[in-house]
Amino acid sequence: MSSTPLDRDTAAGLDAADPLGHLRARFALPGELIYLDGNSLGPLPVGVADRMRDTIEREWGQDLIKSWNSAGWIDLPLRTGARIARLVGAAEDEVVVTDSTSVNLFKLLVAAARLRPGRRVVVTESTTFPTDGYIAAAVAEILGLELRWCDRADPVAAVGDDTAVLALNHVDYRGGHLLDLEAVTRRAHERGALVLWDLCHSAGVVPVDLDESGADLAVGCGYKYLNGGPGAPAFCFVAKRLHDELRQPLTGWMGHAEPFAMARDYTPAAGTTRLQAGTPPVLSLAALDAALDAVEGVEVADLRRKSLRLTGTFLDLVRAYTDLEVLTPADDRRRGSQVSLRHPRAYGVVQALIARGVVGDFREPDVARFGFAPAYLRYIDVWDAVQQLVAVLQGEEYADPAYSSRSPVT
Amino acid sequence: MSSTPLDRDTAAGLDAADPLGHLRARFALPGELIYLDGNSLGPLPVGVADRMRDTIEREWGQDLIKSWNSAGWIDLPLRTGARIARLVGAAEDEVVVTDSTSVNLFKLLVAAARLRPGRRVVVTESTTFPTDGYIAAAVAEILGLELRWCDRADPVAAVGDDTAVLALNHVDYRGGHLLDLEAVTRRAHERGALVLWDLCHSAGVVPVDLDESGADLAVGCGYKYLNGGPGAPAFCFVAKRLHDELRQPLTGWMGHAEPFAMARDYTPAAGTTRLQAGTPPVLSLAALDAALDAVEGVEVADLRRKSLRLTGTFLDLVRAYTDLEVLTPADDRRRGSQVSLRHPRAYGVVQALIARGVVGDFREPDVARFGFAPAYLRYIDVWDAVQQLVAVLQGEEYADPAYSSRSPVT
Repeated sequence: MSSTPLDRDTAAGLDAADPLGHLRARFALPGELIYLDGNSLGPLPVGVADRMRDTIEREWGQDLIKSWNSAGWIDLPLRTGARIARLVGAAEDEVVVTDSTSVNLFKLLVAAARLRPGRRVVVTESTTFPTDGYIAAAVAEILGLELRWCDRADPVAAVGDDTAVLALNHVDYRGGHLLDLEAVTRRAHERGALVLWDLCHSAGVVPVDLDESGADLAVGCGYKYLNGGPGAPAFCFVAKRLHDELRQPLTGWMGHAEPFAMARDYTPAAGTTRLQAGTPPVLSLAALDAALDAVEGVEVADLRRKSLRLTGTFLDLVRAYTDLEVLTPADDRRRGSQVSLRHPRAYGVVQALIARGVVGDFREPDVARFGFAPAYLRYIDVWDAVQQLVAVLQGEEYADPAYSSRSPVT
Repeated sequence: MSSTPLDRDTAAGLDAADPLGHLRARFALPGELIYLDGNSLGPLPVGVADRMRDTIEREWGQDLIKSWNSAGWIDLPLRTGARIARLVGAAEDEVVVTDSTSVNLFKLLVAAARLRPGRRVVVTESTTFPTDGYIAAAVAEILGLELRWCDRADPVAAVGDDTAVLALNHVDYRGGHLLDLEAVTRRAHERGALVLWDLCHSAGVVPVDLDESGADLAVGCGYKYLNGGPGAPAFCFVAKRLHDELRQPLTGWMGHAEPFAMARDYTPAAGTTRLQAGTPPVLSLAALDAALDAVEGVEVADLRRKSLRLTGTFLDLVRAYTDLEVLTPADDRRRGSQVSLRHPRAYGVVQALIARGVVGDFREPDVARFGFAPAYLRYIDVWDAVQQLVAVLQGEEYADPAYSSRSPVT
């Protein structure tokens, strides 16, 4: 054990001086829980329950069908998208909220291949989040393209003049490694490929700067750092220069230029509206829209500053108090907003921590993953979490037979 | 004008004797409104608001990520599907709730074409609901198939030994014409084609009997006669004999045999689970699940009996009191649960009726459409609605200049 890098009083002092400290009150966090799993499911922001009651009881219950116009349900995908745009460095009309990340990956990968006819290869990481790889394979199959796996350490190395699109995670879900979005985009563009970024683990917590980086396409999740609730709809970004050309395959009526003209043939709507397919899920969308109030007026750069300090402190404490292998980059420029630790019985470690009121999650095969959402976490949470981790390790609590069989969702 | 087929007292007598009359109390209907638009958006069932509060404040707010297991969020698509199965004559494990109708049409049309390799034609109605036609065209394009339009009067005439799948609406959204699901399925099967039924305008109100009819595939809507709320998720049916062979293209992680194994390659889950793509929209799903309580213990055959009597009475009254052209079949065997009337200023007619507290909707180019949901409508509603319609027509209220420009959603 090395010397203590920070004690609890110092942590409490950092909290007292935290310029974002007031944001914690915007979340309905349960009691004494230390919630380090906002990268899996963001907690409930205050205000969401009231908004949902109003949406359900007044908009749906009392005003019924007319709420499509009077409550603006029909524009909710674009309005919510415009609010997310600010968080990912996009123009308001470049982002729309619709469907799930998986479905949006399918839309945008097919669209990308159509924007690069003649190029027969889709490239993605061999260690990508499962759904990203499965969808890339499905797109390659249906379009008769080749799926080529790349290495996250140098993804552009796999991109050639045969490559239509390179699909990458901005932050790796398992280890929290952060790619340089601007540099990778530029290098892929030099080879004539488009880049599709999955922002699930960066939107709302890591600066993204899509427009400044010259990004083409992106998708992202509504229920992690945007706190939109379980299974919240996802978002799509399309750079404005591609709006007119973009053709996605899920041509539902809500992406039509005039859905209520009931025309036989499909004419895509202008802009990102064409990324919509079916009738938008108003209840889930309203929850996400209300959840965005929790970061209203907050700059992502400020969230990032605190996030790096939280993860940095956690890393320092873990190194000081344990001998666990750290999977997450120590370099601030390469680290997302999580820290992942290796342990041969990582599932038991996570379960034992949960029993002690510290919630992280387990990822196959041996990773204990801890997400640090700067909007509601405190420095004392970091300090306390590591103390609990030390207790779990010292008491070998991870070996509890109760943790030998896994829950359906891990 | 012919003689009155029914007066208000008789209507009130029918209500007093209505064996389904008690169901109206299961809906939070606003005041004096006569709501004939449940075929566009079903009203709010009582109990949904409380369920949503619990889902949001306790399951999400207090229990957070563990609710995937403890509250059974992960199984909600299958559990809710199993409840819908009863309403469409399917086995519990043949229905799953996921995504939107549009997205599900895409999945199942591609899957159907893969089940009939070598057959190069997709057939659908030229007057189908827009999204059905747009998606059929998109599937034909991406698979390099031919899209062939058929006539609803004899859809199987367009099916040949080149046809992979025939996609049809059980009830036509515009005029309310009902097809004979069993006969059409049988005749299409004789030609070797699969049939994909869109049940949006029949599920929950018209007997469907998928299994007895030998049906292959179906999709349906959660927010019409199932009352699941605006943009509620949709459902898919796949006949059990096709479960093992079915390959759909939106291979998201929630359709994987072991989503949390985080394997690189896709292995489809057993049964209808493989029709899931992304993370399920728990909030919208919970609302639909709670809404199904409104028809718990009710037989579709009983709903159908009352529905036919409501629409039949409306038809009789319209014929007696107006000279409007009726688009909907008078034959009970060919009529869904709606009545559609033609008027050159149908948009104005609908708006003037709404101003009088009778909510129907307009469909291009000249259709005033009235849905009759037997779970909450009364015979006196039918009588009163026609009196208001007569007043609108006699006063030429449809000509009000306020109705010359249309709302975004009509």
